Amino acid sequence: MSSKTNQQWGGRFNEPTDAFVARFTASVEFDQRMYRQDIQGSVAHATMLTEAGVLTVAERDMIIQGLADIRADIEAGRFEWSIALEDVHMNIEAALTEKIGITGKKLHTGRSRNDQVATDIRLYLRDEIDLILLEITRLQQGLLGLAEQEADTIMPGFTHLQTAQPVTFGHHLMAWFEMLSRDYDRFLDTRKRVNIMPLGAAALAGTTYPIQRDITCKLLGFDTPAENSLDAVSDRDFAIEFCAASSILLMHMTRMSEELVLWTSAQFNFINLPDRFCTGSSIMPQKKNPDVPELVRGKSGRVYGHLFSLLTLMKSQPLAYNKDNQEDKEPLFDTIDTVKGCLRAYADMVPALESRKEYMREAALRGFSTATDLADYLVRKGMPFRDAHEVVGKSVAYGIETGKDLGEMSLAELQKFSDTIGDDIFDVLTLEGSVAARNHIGGTAPDQVRAAVKRGQEKLTQRG
Amino acid sequence: MSSKTNQQWGGRFNEPTDAFVARFTASVEFDQRMYRQDIQGSVAHATMLTEAGVLTVAERDMIIQGLADIRADIEAGRFEWSIALEDVHMNIEAALTEKIGITGKKLHTGRSRNDQVATDIRLYLRDEIDLILLEITRLQQGLLGLAEQEADTIMPGFTHLQTAQPVTFGHHLMAWFEMLSRDYDRFLDTRKRVNIMPLGAAALAGTTYPIQRDITCKLLGFDTPAENSLDAVSDRDFAIEFCAASSILLMHMTRMSEELVLWTSAQFNFINLPDRFCTGSSIMPQKKNPDVPELVRGKSGRVYGHLFSLLTLMKSQPLAYNKDNQEDKEPLFDTIDTVKGCLRAYADMVPALESRKEYMREAALRGFSTATDLADYLVRKGMPFRDAHEVVGKSVAYGIETGKDLGEMSLAELQKFSDTIGDDIFDVLTLEGSVAARNHIGGTAPDQVRAAVKRGQEKLTQRG
Amino acid sequence: MSSKTNQQWGGRFNEPTDAFVARFTASVEFDQRMYRQDIQGSVAHATMLTEAGVLTVAERDMIIQGLADIRADIEAGRFEWSIALEDVHMNIEAALTEKIGITGKKLHTGRSRNDQVATDIRLYLRDEIDLILLEITRLQQGLLGLAEQEADTIMPGFTHLQTAQPVTFGHHLMAWFEMLSRDYDRFLDTRKRVNIMPLGAAALAGTTYPIQRDITCKLLGFDTPAENSLDAVSDRDFAIEFCAASSILLMHMTRMSEELVLWTSAQFNFINLPDRFCTGSSIMPQKKNPDVPELVRGKSGRVYGHLFSLLTLMKSQPLAYNKDNQEDKEPLFDTIDTVKGCLRAYADMVPALESRKEYMREAALRGFSTATDLADYLVRKGMPFRDAHEVVGKSVAYGIETGKDLGEMSLAELQKFSDTIGDDIFDVLTLEGSVAARNHIGGTAPDQVRAAVKRGQEKLTQRG
Amino acid sequence: MSSKTNQQWGGRFNEPTDAFVARFTASVEFDQRMYRQDIQGSVAHATMLTEAGVLTVAERDMIIQGLADIRADIEAGRFEWSIALEDVHMNIEAALTEKIGITGKKLHTGRSRNDQVATDIRLYLRDEIDLILLEITRLQQGLLGLAEQEADTIMPGFTHLQTAQPVTFGHHLMAWFEMLSRDYDRFLDTRKRVNIMPLGAAALAGTTYPIQRDITCKLLGFDTPAENSLDAVSDRDFAIEFCAASSILLMHMTRMSEELVLWTSAQFNFINLPDRFCTGSSIMPQKKNPDVPELVRGKSGRVYGHLFSLLTLMKSQPLAYNKDNQEDKEPLFDTIDTVKGCLRAYADMVPALESRKEYMREAALRGFSTATDLADYLVRKGMPFRDAHEVVGKSVAYGIETGKDLGEMSLAELQKFSDTIGDDIFDVLTLEGSVAARNHIGGTAPDQVRAAVKRGQEKLTQRG
Repeated sequence: MSSKTNQQWGGRFNEPTDAFVARFTASVEFDQRMYRQDIQGSVAHATMLTEAGVLTVAERDMIIQGLADIRADIEAGRFEWSIALEDVHMNIEAALTEKIGITGKKLHTGRSRNDQVATDIRLYLRDEIDLILLEITRLQQGLLGLAEQEADTIMPGFTHLQTAQPVTFGHHLMAWFEMLSRDYDRFLDTRKRVNIMPLGAAALAGTTYPIQRDITCKLLGFDTPAENSLDAVSDRDFAIEFCAASSILLMHMTRMSEELVLWTSAQFNFINLPDRFCTGSSIMPQKKNPDVPELVRGKSGRVYGHLFSLLTLMKSQPLAYNKDNQEDKEPLFDTIDTVKGCLRAYADMVPALESRKEYMREAALRGFSTATDLADYLVRKGMPFRDAHEVVGKSVAYGIETGKDLGEMSLAELQKFSDTIGDDIFDVLTLEGSVAARNHIGGTAPDQVRAAVKRGQEKLTQRG
Repeated sequence: MSSKTNQQWGGRFNEPTDAFVARFTASVEFDQRMYRQDIQGSVAHATMLTEAGVLTVAERDMIIQGLADIRADIEAGRFEWSIALEDVHMNIEAALTEKIGITGKKLHTGRSRNDQVATDIRLYLRDEIDLILLEITRLQQGLLGLAEQEADTIMPGFTHLQTAQPVTFGHHLMAWFEMLSRDYDRFLDTRKRVNIMPLGAAALAGTTYPIQRDITCKLLGFDTPAENSLDAVSDRDFAIEFCAASSILLMHMTRMSEELVLWTSAQFNFINLPDRFCTGSSIMPQKKNPDVPELVRGKSGRVYGHLFSLLTLMKSQPLAYNKDNQEDKEPLFDTIDTVKGCLRAYADMVPALESRKEYMREAALRGFSTATDLADYLVRKGMPFRDAHEVVGKSVAYGIETGKDLGEMSLAELQKFSDTIGDDIFDVLTLEGSVAARNHIGGTAPDQVRAAVKRGQEKLTQRG
Repeated sequence: MSSKTNQQWGGRFNEPTDAFVARFTASVEFDQRMYRQDIQGSVAHATMLTEAGVLTVAERDMIIQGLADIRADIEAGRFEWSIALEDVHMNIEAALTEKIGITGKKLHTGRSRNDQVATDIRLYLRDEIDLILLEITRLQQGLLGLAEQEADTIMPGFTHLQTAQPVTFGHHLMAWFEMLSRDYDRFLDTRKRVNIMPLGAAALAGTTYPIQRDITCKLLGFDTPAENSLDAVSDRDFAIEFCAASSILLMHMTRMSEELVLWTSAQFNFINLPDRFCTGSSIMPQKKNPDVPELVRGKSGRVYGHLFSLLTLMKSQPLAYNKDNQEDKEPLFDTIDTVKGCLRAYADMVPALESRKEYMREAALRGFSTATDLADYLVRKGMPFRDAHEVVGKSVAYGIETGKDLGEMSLAELQKFSDTIGDDIFDVLTLEGSVAARNHIGGTAPDQVRAAVKRGQEKLTQRG
Repeated sequence: MSSKTNQQWGGRFNEPTDAFVARFTASVEFDQRMYRQDIQGSVAHATMLTEAGVLTVAERDMIIQGLADIRADIEAGRFEWSIALEDVHMNIEAALTEKIGITGKKLHTGRSRNDQVATDIRLYLRDEIDLILLEITRLQQGLLGLAEQEADTIMPGFTHLQTAQPVTFGHHLMAWFEMLSRDYDRFLDTRKRVNIMPLGAAALAGTTYPIQRDITCKLLGFDTPAENSLDAVSDRDFAIEFCAASSILLMHMTRMSEELVLWTSAQFNFINLPDRFCTGSSIMPQKKNPDVPELVRGKSGRVYGHLFSLLTLMKSQPLAYNKDNQEDKEPLFDTIDTVKGCLRAYADMVPALESRKEYMREAALRGFSTATDLADYLVRKGMPFRDAHEVVGKSVAYGIETGKDLGEMSLAELQKFSDTIGDDIFDVLTLEGSVAARNHIGGTAPDQVRAAVKRGQEKLTQRG
């Protein structure tokens, strides 16, 4: 350490860092969570340096042992993190030198904090993406189970939150399943671009030491080394792309949440959320609030915000590394934590949803939900669709006036709007007839739902 | 507490909250920082309840003493925060009941957590805005000092990062001062809308107890009680508006930071940042990096992100309170911390900036910075501005070819482009002549800078 | 014009602008909407130049007449906008020179496009803010009318979209009124910072001509000239602040829209939207969709996006003007148009809302909405609030099991939970009793609503 | 059309749409740009309906001919778009019915505007992505050409905008190439999720007609039909994902732009931008501004904004289609236009960049850029890296004091800091030695740059 500045990099400095600046610029409070990846990277680096003839086998072994001890110290809560040492990297390296002496100082040969931190963060994110993929699958598994169980349950389908056509609850749940399948694929695509190795880029230009990047690449499980050192230390695309995929996932979860909140309201009353997923009110003794969906809905803001944080961060940065980039970690870490928390809460909760079939059915019966079926009936009898639409529109206007749904009108009443209507119409106007008739891939018919569940099961199985 | 659920609100519940859900929905880890405001609000509420005849004087005194003890416990690190008790409010209330018995349970009469949390957060934010206002003033004070000192220092003014016209460094610093003045005013305007009292709105509809909101309002220093209970518990405008004002402030600081980074580069070399505001490199021994401006520039992303977080959070929420709103606190708190940290770093650093006048001057001499002065000279001699522009454009093209700046050409050379040019032109083409000639309010002339500094001093003084 | 480049600024250039680049960098397609302000600014500038002795009275008059003719041409659709002339400023100036000859070239004396565009945009925005303020007032006026009419209409108040306590519909509408009052004030605060004059800043440093900024300032109705030329040409705070105020307004409108969509659903059925504000479906003949609220809700995204656009735009720009700033206009203009459109749609629609009182009332009767009233009753009889809460919670659990609301239980049933309950309880459990009891400022009692409407009327009247 | 409402869907309506509401909710002004895809989808739909026995061959042929005529009308500017007909779909369908009579009314059988618009927009976006992919490749081609040419050109590499180590200009350009390769892959991944067919989902639940989705799927070139009808009409992920990929691309372009702006400044002077990519100033005759990079940098805001717009739009929307979704188009279209414009401008400009090698070299010689090489030299002589760092730091401090770069110090001076230094040091301190020594994959050595260019060429070739 430099005597004038008590910093490892202090040779050319004339005064110590200002105490507030030291705190303000330190990252160790949040980057210490990558200690495992930092050590993993250092072990691989030391191994490679030995292959390359830069370290002896004995030096390598001392380093690896020292790092193992440090890891044990950290996990036992015995490690003292120091803000003066700025970050996780310097903290661990200083501890290593303290433990094993001068050999510790050799570990940093042929690398820089710039490629080291980029490597750590990619290793960390890769591990977390793998956990997220598992949790999405668990949630999807729950949806498949529930959808199968509810394949025949009829509820109103909505557009514009107005009753549109009857659908099956299982079909609705499978819409959620589809959203999550795209999310899964997006995280998988992101993972490809995460799993590239910056190590070897050194500060920005590569290094003069005879490093062998294929060795570290293989040891660390990366797909390939980064092609360009300047890009390697300055690229943060992977973090942004991860936050974009997370934002879309959370957006999906706001939609599910919105529906759960609606469905648990007294007005809809379509489902029951078990008490263990709800909380009460400090003042209103009757309240049972759908806290989990509400909070998940609210957490979308957090994740959207982090995405914009990172996009802003990188805007207009010249190459290569700038200190700005230290700000990449907190948004990324909080996004990871939020995504995992929300998925976990949903994966636990979804299988426990209880449908209130009688309320769903009764709602489907109201609101002229089979009006399209009447129009389709008229078209099958030869009327152009646009004319049939007009006929049904007028029947509905009559129904509103008289307080009758279509299925409640007499044949005579219906025939006032078109004499094409015969008494075979009443089969068409049942809920069961309506949903069963939408019997093509993607349609709401119970058989289609069961087929979709089966395909879903196969998809999850193939994930292995 | 309910025996089945171990929750204060558990009377109508059949099972305890799921353990993960309890952690996921708890806010005490981040809202405990409002303990001081929570107690302040409770003291005022108890005082008012006594005036209103709901509590006796003895009860009030027990409550106030109990709360004072709890505050002391918290500040001494003796208080055990419990996630099972969800939030700062329930934690403190439970502790109060434990300390003073049944009377503690009476404190919540006539209020709800909905109006309580809205009150706490406004009190908290109001205090923090006051600190931020002071810190902006301190930074502006530093700018005034430096601007006065550098009122005569000439540097190139840039547009498009191309040399445009000579300006004085003091004038440039006063542009920063102006930005900060608008920030100050925006925070002040925000403060007006923060300082409104939700207390008394209860859960959403007001309360049946004979509360007297003017009493709590006065005790807590609010300007006025909120006019509508539904709005009072659901309004989070103040947090968004604060984050918007903060985003603009941080945007300004990215612009200052960008300039400091440019000016400390080897290519510009306009200023020196003292070592104590910089850090070095783990691999490149010669590096001295302008970490503070870089990091502040990066922190803009964080604050922009929080603004969008809150805007997203509130989108499409029906009235009144929803659990989503719990997500308002972390973005707000982190914005407060970031704004204070960035201002502090700058307020400390700005007075220590050292200009390198010779490099600034040399840069101003290059790049045809007095071309506009030549055009203006021609106009004063009677040429229409657009024609003068064309003449000077051609002189510059000639200068690029021959490697001469305008001031370095002979009279004969200049006259090739217009015979209107006489030998009085050479006064016009000096840097000093150029800046001194822009001598109107807002112009870059040293005298104008000194006048602007004087007006700035008066403005700061009036803030009191 | 330069022969080599056919551009007014082309003197030093060797080749013409690339044709695609000319189109890509031109702004005339969107900035032409400021033609009126551009001419207004030029008239003021010419008038001032005459006072300052730079132009003769005859020159001034020719310029003013020429500009008036151009304005007439534009408004008659006779003006040919040219992309080669880049922007509204160059188009108008070129047309002026064509009309009045060499004198037209003198108009640009002592100013630059940098201060000219900044002046135009502020004039434009100021005019639009004034229209927006009027439209907010019109919408608020509609709310006051409806709120007065619905002061006694009882509906369920919600928290977490669960029935919470009965409120009056008028009280709910007054919550919207309050949101809009804050929006009004925010636009007014923004207007103060819009109404500052950049003119005189010239390119970035001020000008060598003897300009008199107080004259143009007065002629253009600005409050004061900008204090610093570098800041004046680079400041876009006002546009960001306007978009922030607009984002909060649109956020409010998403909340109103969300409620209108809920209330027009078959499940809630609280209000009717007249047909003229709705549209139908191309396939489902029965549909009547609440398009206006839905579309307004969707338009929040647009305005939030523009805010983020501008914050991104300004991040890290060094002073003074950069070409990036050309991108400030489209987001600002589209925000203005969107805000005006949404306000107009709502101001037209709100007075036409028809409440369905019987459905509102019936919903309020369900869901144990008077549970808090029962708790408050017990407290008044001497029970601590937390214990009363527990008693009521248990009564509610019993009610869920037996399908009875609190008001439907017998005294004996109620007394099973607490023998404190007497037969005076049944007055407490009526909806009318419940709302009337919340009779303090901000509470939901009909009398309070009427008082709030009256204060609202006074506020609108004072806006003048 | 309904007589009371003059709308195709008007059967159940009692009054016509309000005139302002009709304008406010119409989309035809911006969605008409999808007319080609709308017709393409209708042709495929009619063909399928014929296979399915719903239309006769003659009907199909009339429809297809009618649509071809309409397309010709549109492209010849003969088509009258009507706001009363709301959108592109209704406009074309009404024109069809006018042209071919009653048969035109049959086209809408078995589909809805909900699946129709979702199909159109995916077809449109797929076409545009293909154009964008071509344009990225063209820009990358330009970079490869320039990088090869500049493989030996030495410039300073920067971190923190401070001189760090010498790099080659070709290496720097290849960093840009890498960024764009990731962008290419992201658009390709997005395209997979765009190319899914919603058609057949009808309004939300599928249709009762015997549609055969595999036929339309094949005719329209989609990979597969969407699996779930509710999801199909409500999914807008593809638009968000496209905007996210575009935001990252634009972020990259801000970084390139920032560097071009820096490099064309008088202070850096590393490159020359040909005049045809620049513009001048209306007031400062010497100015030549790098407008294209500046404007591209500014346009990042626009694209970031659109991403946030769409994320906001979709937040909390219950299934299935809501009118909000109409707001998806303008942000998407403007993002497409912006991305194509920025790529085109860069693809045209990059090959025309001229490096100023002498200024780059001179800058690399200043700033102690070979300090790391000196440290590495000491390590090779056996000194631990951290100690070598300290030695070099002190040499640099001495150099700052004495105004000498490392290569300018005598051996004796250097040996004051470590007697390990021998006279072989002077080879190490040359720029050529420094860059050549970083000779591993990803390193800056000219040979590595040439190898990377070769690999890049192969990658582009494989895109086919």
